Amino acid sequence: MTKDALHFTCLGGGHGLYQTLLAARQARAGHIDAVVTVADDGGSSGRLRRELAMIPPGDLRMALSALTSDDEEGRLWRTMLQHRFKGNGAMAGHAVGNLVLAGLSETTGGMQAALDVLARWTGSAGRVIPVCNQPLEIEADVAGLDDDPRIMRSVRGQVAVATTPGSVRRVRLLPPNPPVNPAAIEAILNADVVTIGPGSWFSSVIPHLLVPDVIAALNETSARVIVILNLSPEAGETQGFTTERHIHLLSQHALGLEVDHFLADANAETTPGERANLSRTAARAGAEISYRDVRTILADGTMGLTHDPEKLAQALLELASS
Amino acid sequence: MTKDALHFTCLGGGHGLYQTLLAARQARAGHIDAVVTVADDGGSSGRLRRELAMIPPGDLRMALSALTSDDEEGRLWRTMLQHRFKGNGAMAGHAVGNLVLAGLSETTGGMQAALDVLARWTGSAGRVIPVCNQPLEIEADVAGLDDDPRIMRSVRGQVAVATTPGSVRRVRLLPPNPPVNPAAIEAILNADVVTIGPGSWFSSVIPHLLVPDVIAALNETSARVIVILNLSPEAGETQGFTTERHIHLLSQHALGLEVDHFLADANAETTPGERANLSRTAARAGAEISYRDVRTILADGTMGLTHDPEKLAQALLELASS
Repeated sequence: MTKDALHFTCLGGGHGLYQTLLAARQARAGHIDAVVTVADDGGSSGRLRRELAMIPPGDLRMALSALTSDDEEGRLWRTMLQHRFKGNGAMAGHAVGNLVLAGLSETTGGMQAALDVLARWTGSAGRVIPVCNQPLEIEADVAGLDDDPRIMRSVRGQVAVATTPGSVRRVRLLPPNPPVNPAAIEAILNADVVTIGPGSWFSSVIPHLLVPDVIAALNETSARVIVILNLSPEAGETQGFTTERHIHLLSQHALGLEVDHFLADANAETTPGERANLSRTAARAGAEISYRDVRTILADGTMGLTHDPEKLAQALLELASS
Repeated sequence: MTKDALHFTCLGGGHGLYQTLLAARQARAGHIDAVVTVADDGGSSGRLRRELAMIPPGDLRMALSALTSDDEEGRLWRTMLQHRFKGNGAMAGHAVGNLVLAGLSETTGGMQAALDVLARWTGSAGRVIPVCNQPLEIEADVAGLDDDPRIMRSVRGQVAVATTPGSVRRVRLLPPNPPVNPAAIEAILNADVVTIGPGSWFSSVIPHLLVPDVIAALNETSARVIVILNLSPEAGETQGFTTERHIHLLSQHALGLEVDHFLADANAETTPGERANLSRTAARAGAEISYRDVRTILADGTMGLTHDPEKLAQALLELASS
């Protein structure tokens, strides 16, 4: 495989993974694998996982849509997969792609088979891989829910964790140590570049690192392992958390994980002292921290809240060849 | 177009149309158009038409499935489109294809556009055309619901009509004289062979003939117009009705309709007297009645309840060239 056609494997979920997959396409990746979180329990995904005992499809659908061909048929597919029914009936809020994934996973023998069929039909630029072949739950230790700040309470479920008014200290998977989807390990081992994040830290990013075989594969692969840091503290689960705390949380949950680069937004205002602290925190994971301009510029000239796929592609290619 | 590649246009709905479309494929039609009823209000279709104000998709999905390519991808499509969710939740009983049609019709600008997109994706052997571009209702005059058999009551809705314990005398469409889908007229005018039926007489067959422009097109087309009679009196709406009564009902609802052939099952036991009556009834619509062996033979050697696609193809080709 030439340097112009790198194999990207991108770990995450939701909108963060969507932007990263667009970046991998911009980087003219030779192959793209999206390794996707399976712990969502909200909205359309949550209703379907409860009703049909299936892997929550929403994050998988988002990744599939990011990889769908840009030709006319692909655009029809993407629009349909992402479309949500309106109104206030039984279908309201369901994304059509979630229902297609539900139907195909029941008729093809499983979610991975369904995703591979849909990848063919949508002219996909890559493969979508659930990190585990079963739905998972996250459970968090949360402080600050009681008058006594030392009391830690257990909060279960992605929505509950994402919206808790307390401060999340630690998350775990239920069931713990779930068996990995072998396709995820293959994707990590065969990659030239592995990205982790950006995205909801406790819901979309850290859960990947709680699957023991994922950590082992990340340490075994010869790929560059790049953690893409969030542009801004998110509302909800990590509101007010500094970049340093994001890195610390990652290291705390992924004991022994070796990272090559933490990719941070060069536009963020940080003091020399903060940068020195960040470098030290990153170094503890064996990584260096790299600042790049990766932020979307909106039509009115102000900075957006998402990663710009083209800028992110450029940054990833630079780090991959550094 | 050579005689080996006739243009078939098939009017109907449900399982009857499904078998006829398989027959058209067996007849190596050069082009197949399925003109499909839009008055269903039961099951998955009924729930979706009420919730999303859409054309009921079930009969359209069935026709699409009959025309879906027989290669490996086509089989995956057909299995998915026809698959129904189980259980007892909000999705239970919905066919996946109905949900795909709902989503595509909302994102492509209408049901005909959605069907044309799906035809491409499924490698369809033909085109599926809703007879009207809006959902319709049927309403029936039903006798025998009161102690006094002269009292006629009005029963509204396909399910109510199909399951009434009374005797249906006449059906009409709501709204009356709905505007036809122009694609249906084009399909009838361009055809070499037009088939009507088999199927639920009041729900799937006669409603087509209550659209005034359909009758005009059937009388204008140079195609052979062949009514495929049911093999057996159906349970429900026409239980116990003779073949003669089926023909009579058709003529009564489709005033002025010119038919070339009524195709009857040669295996049905009819006396010479009954056959003479049938011929006279058919002649009143300008048609002759033709008896052919068109019935499926089951694995155990007994006769099935459906038309055999290969036998039906043979019969239709004979009548088309007679």
